[in-house]
Amino acid sequence: MKTSVSINWLDKMAFEGEADGHKFIFDADPQVGGEGRGFRPKQFMMYALAGCTAMDVISILKKMRVEVEAFHVEVESELTEEHPKHYTSAHIIFTFKGKDLPMDKLEKAVNLSEERYCGVSTVYKKVMPVTTEIRIEE
Amino acid sequence: MKTSVSINWLDKMAFEGEADGHKFIFDADPQVGGEGRGFRPKQFMMYALAGCTAMDVISILKKMRVEVEAFHVEVESELTEEHPKHYTSAHIIFTFKGKDLPMDKLEKAVNLSEERYCGVSTVYKKVMPVTTEIRIEE
Repeated sequence: MKTSVSINWLDKMAFEGEADGHKFIFDADPQVGGEGRGFRPKQFMMYALAGCTAMDVISILKKMRVEVEAFHVEVESELTEEHPKHYTSAHIIFTFKGKDLPMDKLEKAVNLSEERYCGVSTVYKKVMPVTTEIRIEE
Repeated sequence: MKTSVSINWLDKMAFEGEADGHKFIFDADPQVGGEGRGFRPKQFMMYALAGCTAMDVISILKKMRVEVEAFHVEVESELTEEHPKHYTSAHIIFTFKGKDLPMDKLEKAVNLSEERYCGVSTVYKKVMPVTTEIRIEE
């Protein structure tokens, strides 16, 4: 299936992206000519991973009838210091809040996403370690 | 260098990301339980590529004293039909608008980004073909 995204230059280092009426801005830090008006493009690589697996997990848990009160996904990653500055690892921390949450089902949902459904993880795993961790907050 | 991003579950399939005061929403299509309130997470993989190389190119052209009136970056990509649905190629189209734009300098800027600076391209090139194309609009 063919897909496409595009961004338009605004000025200086700022670009705008738009899809289905939703917009965001990319901008660089002031020390490299930007004005900090938006997101760093590279961050979007890790937001893609967080969002892709988070949607899988919440939808699998719904099918398992596991009720979650709050859910938060963080991705910690290692970035090289030298050009081209790029990510070399991703560690995904899934934090759930709820009553008597069943760890086995949470693990199953996370594993299904990582092994079968998350197409972002599929790509990144080929070039860097992608690890996961589950935390429960009562 | 360690970096981190995170998203918070809102409800249904919607999540919110926030960095330095900037926000965006991820949401799924209605046919998979979402309400189309935001971006698809996977798209962010290709926005990351577009933004990363676009910022390189505009900043290299500035150093070369090439004046561009308008600049647009599109990424066309191929997505598998089967789970895990993932990208298998990326074609970046750089469209410049301006007077008497020097193609050799535009090419040099794009090549420098692809070969030396863009850390998103660096990662994706290891797992899929990443190609480029330059278009000039008078």
